[in-house]
Amino acid sequence: MLKNKSLVSISDLSDDDLNNVFLEADKMLDYINSSKKLDIMGSKILATLFYEPSTRTRLSFESAMQRLGGSTISMADSKTSSVSKGETLADTIRIIESYSDIIVIRHPLEGAAFLASKFSSKPVINAGDGSGEHPTQTLVDLYTIKKELGEINNKKITIMGDLKYGRTVHSLLMALTRYNVDVTLVSPENLRLSDYVYNELKNKLNITISDSLEKYINDTDVLYVTRLQKERFTDKNEYSKLIGSYRITAKETEKMKNNSIIMHPLPRVDEISPEVDSTDKAKYFKQASYGIPVRMALISMIAGD
Amino acid sequence: MLKNKSLVSISDLSDDDLNNVFLEADKMLDYINSSKKLDIMGSKILATLFYEPSTRTRLSFESAMQRLGGSTISMADSKTSSVSKGETLADTIRIIESYSDIIVIRHPLEGAAFLASKFSSKPVINAGDGSGEHPTQTLVDLYTIKKELGEINNKKITIMGDLKYGRTVHSLLMALTRYNVDVTLVSPENLRLSDYVYNELKNKLNITISDSLEKYINDTDVLYVTRLQKERFTDKNEYSKLIGSYRITAKETEKMKNNSIIMHPLPRVDEISPEVDSTDKAKYFKQASYGIPVRMALISMIAGD
Amino acid sequence: MLKNKSLVSISDLSDDDLNNVFLEADKMLDYINSSKKLDIMGSKILATLFYEPSTRTRLSFESAMQRLGGSTISMADSKTSSVSKGETLADTIRIIESYSDIIVIRHPLEGAAFLASKFSSKPVINAGDGSGEHPTQTLVDLYTIKKELGEINNKKITIMGDLKYGRTVHSLLMALTRYNVDVTLVSPENLRLSDYVYNELKNKLNITISDSLEKYINDTDVLYVTRLQKERFTDKNEYSKLIGSYRITAKETEKMKNNSIIMHPLPRVDEISPEVDSTDKAKYFKQASYGIPVRMALISMIAGD
Repeated sequence: MLKNKSLVSISDLSDDDLNNVFLEADKMLDYINSSKKLDIMGSKILATLFYEPSTRTRLSFESAMQRLGGSTISMADSKTSSVSKGETLADTIRIIESYSDIIVIRHPLEGAAFLASKFSSKPVINAGDGSGEHPTQTLVDLYTIKKELGEINNKKITIMGDLKYGRTVHSLLMALTRYNVDVTLVSPENLRLSDYVYNELKNKLNITISDSLEKYINDTDVLYVTRLQKERFTDKNEYSKLIGSYRITAKETEKMKNNSIIMHPLPRVDEISPEVDSTDKAKYFKQASYGIPVRMALISMIAGD
Repeated sequence: MLKNKSLVSISDLSDDDLNNVFLEADKMLDYINSSKKLDIMGSKILATLFYEPSTRTRLSFESAMQRLGGSTISMADSKTSSVSKGETLADTIRIIESYSDIIVIRHPLEGAAFLASKFSSKPVINAGDGSGEHPTQTLVDLYTIKKELGEINNKKITIMGDLKYGRTVHSLLMALTRYNVDVTLVSPENLRLSDYVYNELKNKLNITISDSLEKYINDTDVLYVTRLQKERFTDKNEYSKLIGSYRITAKETEKMKNNSIIMHPLPRVDEISPEVDSTDKAKYFKQASYGIPVRMALISMIAGD
Repeated sequence: MLKNKSLVSISDLSDDDLNNVFLEADKMLDYINSSKKLDIMGSKILATLFYEPSTRTRLSFESAMQRLGGSTISMADSKTSSVSKGETLADTIRIIESYSDIIVIRHPLEGAAFLASKFSSKPVINAGDGSGEHPTQTLVDLYTIKKELGEINNKKITIMGDLKYGRTVHSLLMALTRYNVDVTLVSPENLRLSDYVYNELKNKLNITISDSLEKYINDTDVLYVTRLQKERFTDKNEYSKLIGSYRITAKETEKMKNNSIIMHPLPRVDEISPEVDSTDKAKYFKQASYGIPVRMALISMIAGD
């Protein structure tokens, strides 16, 4: 039961919760396709509190709330708020909770969403807290695999790119420990999973580590690509050299087996070539679109009547 | 009757208007608590025109309008508007009035809301004009006293902090002249009420002036605290020295009598210690929450059918 | 039939389309005046994607969508979006299309709206693309002439101001080739229509060119004034000298014939004196107000059920 509960970490959800969210998301997909008007959240208000900008994440929550018939209020940019007068997060939350029925928070500091949930009498959804978690992104990732491949169990999942700093990857890996999957992690050596994260995962998940995709690509069910962030490289030549080895082009897709898929949390820059977009492997825009039914499901289960 | 009237100053409201707003706010509180869907403003649009940022005030009006079933459009930041091309306020208003049914304006210059109301064929609500007024804040302040203490008459009200520059305090004092109350003003000498304001009030209101709270705290019904704005002090040591004498901690709350309350227009910084939040005196978050029913009442009385 | 079609250029519309939009706008005007609640777009979401700020245009689309009973999500400022991480317009569009049912785009580069329409499975409306087009402004201009003068054919239309850089003027001239009108273009020599544009129009439209309004003002039905943009002049004295000759004051309005009107796309700065506002010639605020019924008509015809 998610009713009135906050979602700070993907580990706040039981296996049953996950399944219920996915079942509810299926129903929401049907509603979206029928373009029938929903009135599940008719009298309710969702507040988005973004202490760092993330237009896409903000709009996906607002769209989901409005598809449910509800309303939204937004602090899209903390620079224009009382925050700049020195107000604490705890105070802001205790005011915004009286303006709304559910709060979505994005913050540059890890732990901010947890703190917010402790001070709020209304449920809080974490939409990314620094190097912490972004649980709804993980829900969308899992739902995409389930919808596109039928199930998550027994899949070979290859994750490639920046594995060291990527919040998305850490949350996804934690969530995958619930399933019976084989995971291969492909990255340049300096962007491997940190020892700290690896040690937490290694007993719960079957992990292979490599610096080359070549050996694994033809046997992969899910190729999950993330952005190599240019700003992580002090030597820009280093970036230019590396990006060639960690970019997916049409050539790579031809090596992939039938029914395998390519995912990406977006935005992508150089790491997937545009020619890949038109192949049947490319599911990253589909993945983004699943953000709406998944967030609709979550919002209605948490804050619906 | 407030129908189709602008609200620029608290003095635009008769005593009857005030009472009617409070009665209507009571009904709105009931609706909020029942979470029934209202459709009082179903076909109407409220526009917020903010020439300086104030996220909280903007969101409270938007939340109130949406709780009434209405819609909102927002200029949250004048830097991204035609204002930067040299358009006058009068022109902007004459355009926005055709996009909306009621306009909420915030502006750094005193008199801007009055000017807007003169050019607009749609009602305008002043949400703060420089050192001028912020009448809905004052309505919320009065409503809070009424709800928490039963009535406003015969109360001892102590106002502490920056009394010289605080727009909130001036509006509240003007409004309190309508009631039979005793007011004590506590502030450092350099932040006392200006002579100009004091002279306007002294014949209408029983005012005591002091630089120390000590003598008055145990007999106060309402302790209204405002922020000492650091930016008012050229000597930052002076601020650090003073803030100690004008800060409320748990120790002060223990001296206060039963059923007395602490209010603050928020945001607060150092002037109320967080330990006070959990005492039964602390009503400042409650006060913020009353912003919704009071604004709902006002919007529906002004622009409802 | 406009259903599910994008509107990038005014030339995307047939003569029949134009007439149908105007007929539908008439109905919308009636609805607005009756303040009846519409539910034409009840389950739909309009997304505004503004890569450069234009508060008025954004609010007019949002107001129109909300008057139709629909909802809106907004990227009001691209600086706070994934765009800053290097995402292409094509990628952004393919994500936003899954969040919404119709997309309104404003972009500093000519051709951006066309590109967006090619990548989107949802209809796209161009709200201005650099020196390209702004077709809904043109629709509003034509509708204003029709409403205020009964018809567009057989009118004498004088357009004055910056004719070289004005996107609004180019679109309007292109649209006027559909009608039987006489056009006079009045501007300083350095701000005349470029040869390129003139050559495209000269065979389709009866055009007279002049640097003085004097000879034409008493026989004009529509005087369409645009802003002389100060920033176009390297020599600011030159601007100050010229603006006197291209400014409309009460004196000019007295020379105009009965039932003639003054229009302006707004914002205006110095080019129409405020004293003109109260004359019966001044229709520029009326023109701005027609933006709502025209955009309501367009949105409902494109994305309604």
